[in-house]
Amino acid sequence: MNTLAPQSDAGQAPTARVAAAYARIAEVDRPEVWITVRAQAEVTAEAAVIEQRLAAGEVLPLAGLLVAVKDNIDVTGIPTTAGCPEFAYTPTDTATSVQRLIDAGAVILGKTNLDQFATGLVGTRSPYGAVRNAHHPALIAGGSSSGSAAAVALGIADLGIGTDTAGSGRVPAALHGIVGIKASLGIIPTDGVVPACADYDAVTVFAGTVDLATRAAAIMAGPEPRDPRSRTWPADVRLAAPREPRLAVPDEANLAALSSSYRDAFDRTVAAATAAGVKIEPIDISGLLEAARLLYGGAIVAERYAAVGAFLETRPAGADPTVAAIITAAAATTGPAFAADLDALARARADALALVGSFDALLLPTTTEHPSIDAVAAEPVTINQRLGTYTNFCNLLDMAAVAVPGEPTATGEPFGVMVVVPAFADQVAVDIAARLEGSAATPLLVDRGVDLAVFGAHLRGQPLNWQLDDLGARFVGSIQTTDAYRLTALDTTPLKPGLVRTAPGAGAPIVGELFRLSEAALGSFLAGLPAPMALTRIELADGRAVVGFTATHDATSTATDITEYGGWVTYLNAR
Amino acid sequence: MNTLAPQSDAGQAPTARVAAAYARIAEVDRPEVWITVRAQAEVTAEAAVIEQRLAAGEVLPLAGLLVAVKDNIDVTGIPTTAGCPEFAYTPTDTATSVQRLIDAGAVILGKTNLDQFATGLVGTRSPYGAVRNAHHPALIAGGSSSGSAAAVALGIADLGIGTDTAGSGRVPAALHGIVGIKASLGIIPTDGVVPACADYDAVTVFAGTVDLATRAAAIMAGPEPRDPRSRTWPADVRLAAPREPRLAVPDEANLAALSSSYRDAFDRTVAAATAAGVKIEPIDISGLLEAARLLYGGAIVAERYAAVGAFLETRPAGADPTVAAIITAAAATTGPAFAADLDALARARADALALVGSFDALLLPTTTEHPSIDAVAAEPVTINQRLGTYTNFCNLLDMAAVAVPGEPTATGEPFGVMVVVPAFADQVAVDIAARLEGSAATPLLVDRGVDLAVFGAHLRGQPLNWQLDDLGARFVGSIQTTDAYRLTALDTTPLKPGLVRTAPGAGAPIVGELFRLSEAALGSFLAGLPAPMALTRIELADGRAVVGFTATHDATSTATDITEYGGWVTYLNAR
Repeated sequence: MNTLAPQSDAGQAPTARVAAAYARIAEVDRPEVWITVRAQAEVTAEAAVIEQRLAAGEVLPLAGLLVAVKDNIDVTGIPTTAGCPEFAYTPTDTATSVQRLIDAGAVILGKTNLDQFATGLVGTRSPYGAVRNAHHPALIAGGSSSGSAAAVALGIADLGIGTDTAGSGRVPAALHGIVGIKASLGIIPTDGVVPACADYDAVTVFAGTVDLATRAAAIMAGPEPRDPRSRTWPADVRLAAPREPRLAVPDEANLAALSSSYRDAFDRTVAAATAAGVKIEPIDISGLLEAARLLYGGAIVAERYAAVGAFLETRPAGADPTVAAIITAAAATTGPAFAADLDALARARADALALVGSFDALLLPTTTEHPSIDAVAAEPVTINQRLGTYTNFCNLLDMAAVAVPGEPTATGEPFGVMVVVPAFADQVAVDIAARLEGSAATPLLVDRGVDLAVFGAHLRGQPLNWQLDDLGARFVGSIQTTDAYRLTALDTTPLKPGLVRTAPGAGAPIVGELFRLSEAALGSFLAGLPAPMALTRIELADGRAVVGFTATHDATSTATDITEYGGWVTYLNAR
Repeated sequence: MNTLAPQSDAGQAPTARVAAAYARIAEVDRPEVWITVRAQAEVTAEAAVIEQRLAAGEVLPLAGLLVAVKDNIDVTGIPTTAGCPEFAYTPTDTATSVQRLIDAGAVILGKTNLDQFATGLVGTRSPYGAVRNAHHPALIAGGSSSGSAAAVALGIADLGIGTDTAGSGRVPAALHGIVGIKASLGIIPTDGVVPACADYDAVTVFAGTVDLATRAAAIMAGPEPRDPRSRTWPADVRLAAPREPRLAVPDEANLAALSSSYRDAFDRTVAAATAAGVKIEPIDISGLLEAARLLYGGAIVAERYAAVGAFLETRPAGADPTVAAIITAAAATTGPAFAADLDALARARADALALVGSFDALLLPTTTEHPSIDAVAAEPVTINQRLGTYTNFCNLLDMAAVAVPGEPTATGEPFGVMVVVPAFADQVAVDIAARLEGSAATPLLVDRGVDLAVFGAHLRGQPLNWQLDDLGARFVGSIQTTDAYRLTALDTTPLKPGLVRTAPGAGAPIVGELFRLSEAALGSFLAGLPAPMALTRIELADGRAVVGFTATHDATSTATDITEYGGWVTYLNAR
């Protein structure tokens, strides 16, 4: 979808990539994208250090990748403005999320423009200028993470770091044809972020592909004591989408908010997904869409006042009038109304889980239309509200989302969809998003789980593989045992092999597959495993020892030795 | 601690128990305990049905146990007053928590008095009269679940059902020398309960022993769609306290709120626990005690206004002046203040987890003193506040607690302590509480997990049993395999047996032990299990088949057969 090819080449040395990025900044002439661009010499020097570390053999997973950071996220020594010059302060600590990127070898280019105090989905609510869409300058970039998305779409930065409370990490992705990941609340730490609505804020990442966005998100993720809302993946976290995911889409009535060109693009996107083997079912999501009103339409907006209301009461010259009006109005909300809205939210959250629970994910249009900057200037609140129709409920209802390009509109404008899942099903969303993108890469966001080696009926394509699929197990790759193993054919239904350890050299390397699954999934799998199958530690040819299948003595003693086939599928094919 | 022996005998038939309870109600002459006592004939008829069902062979775990229900919890056909006559309504549904007791064979005697709208810890804030302490009538019963606790302590009811937001299910237990369980929020459904502070309300149970209270709580627990805040045990839930629990107690400064007689009783209780093998370490809990102010001292009290504020604004004649003043004052709280308090709460919660995380539990005095009814009448707010010193933070900070009798005061008054744990460590709290009580019974509150049969180094007293202890595994009992198994002694360090299945009759019953642990704990255990050990399905002599130990073919083939010993410990002892 990204029609402006990035100037930076992943194969280039970090210093060369920095040079290309600064050339591109000059070339595109979009000053409103940035609030602070770092001095090129300083960034080049950092890139040179990365080169030296790489040359010294260090492994840096994001070596030399260039990052644009939304200016409501702290980076040491660079002012944080949150889009309001009078609010600026110069932090002495870098936000954990960004520091983790730096530690992985990424280089920060600068701080980007945003809807002031991350309040907006348009990218025009800023005294630093309305951010023009990278591809269609008369149209909006979307917000509030406008500059970070534009920097990626313009081919300046590899990664754009944003925040998302109401859709700010997804709407700009949709309007630029790039990817935006909004992980479950608490997964990427929010310390060092100017709060918008502290209980519902997430740090997000934009990139050109699901693969790159996920790799960055995985590095940013993980518990952090400085973020009191930090959460960890649960012990039964799913590590993969099912092979045949079932997605719910909004029914006819729930799509009424879409512009006609977006409606057409959504239908074509759904058709493409169906053609790609994704099962789609329309459902009524009006409960979710109604819950969204709790974000701005009730008392919970008081969280925005608690964050920056006292500052805005000083009437700073740089305050955006729309943003200031929304936030200062929240001073009038009452405690009992807040309590009543929390109660409504608890009910909406339970209802949402019940609604979504029977599907693997929701597939939604990310936003409703692509307005011009002029249109938004004329109607600053109404259009903004409409743009959040499908994004507003997500964080409130404790869901995660991955925004990916859909089929473009008939006139070639970007159109985006979101894969939305309940909290902690992030990997399911990433996998489905990669599939919609048509990507073969299967990046891992969740860093929890244990490996399981299978050699028979649980191999892909074999009759019991569905058990692993049901448990959210993830295919890691093909494996071979050491030559200490012999393979036997057991007398079971379905047919199963019994892998038996003998002495080194007394067997043969046996081929199998490695899956990764949560500790709870492994425990459940074992609890359901019938005799004579057993799980033990298996030595692999690459030197690893992992949990894997064997069978009990009594069963293998009488089984047929099929070691000569080197693996179960070869044996089955030869029978 | 309960000096008034219950009149009902667990061995008696349900109808006889009902007759004894009504005789006891008349005998004790404490009308203020009840707001509604059901007609004896009706209750007797229900008990007769229970008798018939038992005679027909039905298994009813709480058959004929008599229950007093706090009058802010719905029971079909009986008015719910919440302690205010003008508020009364007659529900057409029974609260799920109570219905589950009824379904298990329990019989409801009536609805009990409370601090109006569950707002208080004294038991005197009710137009139905101040509830006198069961043992010391001039002293308070404690509240807000005053009547339910007194009904148990007076020997009328076996189970008293209460609610707890600030300590209402624990303070009355302490003041009566009985047990009160306040499970993690969301574990016992709160549908059918008049909310006090909806996000922090729990349904609780009082009983004479940890065993009975836990059995009742286990039956009340479990997800329920009608409660939007319903939660389930996580996949890595701990199923037992460690064998040598480490408890934190408040340091010197944090005990200053205690009356001198309670301070003395707490010291003696701690000394007794230490003598019983519990490790105790004083820590500074002032952060927890300060967080407690968020319950009444800030804006979160607006949840009480959201629940019944509009009703109290009608100035009903039966409103308790102290309660009405607290709740109506909450009308003046602001949304931004509520948001700021939620933020403070998020930080306090993270700090609390960090503080408590290095211990198995906190051991705290349940309340500070035992005031007279007259003293509370003279000082209705100050004393009440002090009574909540150690209970107020619990629900706010998402913790669970079990209140048990401590050593009585020098003058023979009851004194109580609480075992407090982070959310979902309820079983740890129950186990430690049973141990403090000196009970041999080990009731199970958590109904999640899988069984694991061990036969060697993981048996109790053997060198690797600590691994199961660390994983929160629970000893279930001794077991025997079928006679299809042979036992071998492997060449491992430490020494381990290899259990091998042969054919039925070709082996011997081998003794082992059964443990129950969470799915995640089983998965982690397996992931850490070294070769040649393996886990498979083991057939037990009682017909069950459970996950249990075996060893791989290569190791057992060369091992020494020790089947003749019938078990590993016998073999070790004979060596």
